[in-house]
Amino acid sequence: MNKINISEKFELFSDEWTPKILAESNGQLVKIAKGSGELVWHAHDNEEELFIAFKGQLTLQLRSENIVLNAGDMYVVPKGSDRCDKY
Amino acid sequence: MNKINISEKFELFSDEWTPKILAESNGQLVKIAKGSGELVWHAHDNEEELFIAFKGQLTLQLRSENIVLNAGDMYVVPKGSDRCDKY
Repeated sequence: MNKINISEKFELFSDEWTPKILAESNGQLVKIAKGSGELVWHAHDNEEELFIAFKGQLTLQLRSENIVLNAGDMYVVPKGSDRCDKY
Repeated sequence: MNKINISEKFELFSDEWTPKILAESNGQLVKIAKGSGELVWHAHDNEEELFIAFKGQLTLQLRSENIVLNAGDMYVVPKGSDRCDKY
């Protein structure tokens, strides 16, 4: 594979809530996405999800608490957590 | 878990070539490390390794080519690739 510049990849699209696959490593996908407003409540029953905020602010609204991620913040959402993402 | 600020974690240590575990997701570890100079030639036979350069420059010297990563660049090293990392 070639190296990937993450900033450049973000410049290639403007649609929201549509993750783009950048790479795969050990069977897991690395994706980037843009968003604004709120996504629907949802959960992933079979896998954890690791988030890193690249720019702006992402709030992972869990049932128990809100996790506010600014650029450079990382969080791992446990399996099966009900979640409503807000940008 | 609490959210993790990646920059702050880098400020907590100065030793080189000693990866620190930040998080685990789906059985895979997220680590940060500092380095300067060259590491020994080595390979990981059983897993791919995904790199993201956070600051400075990291050259993944493979047998076939050199992959130069600057801040924001990402690369997945295939299983079993002989490699000598250079900062």
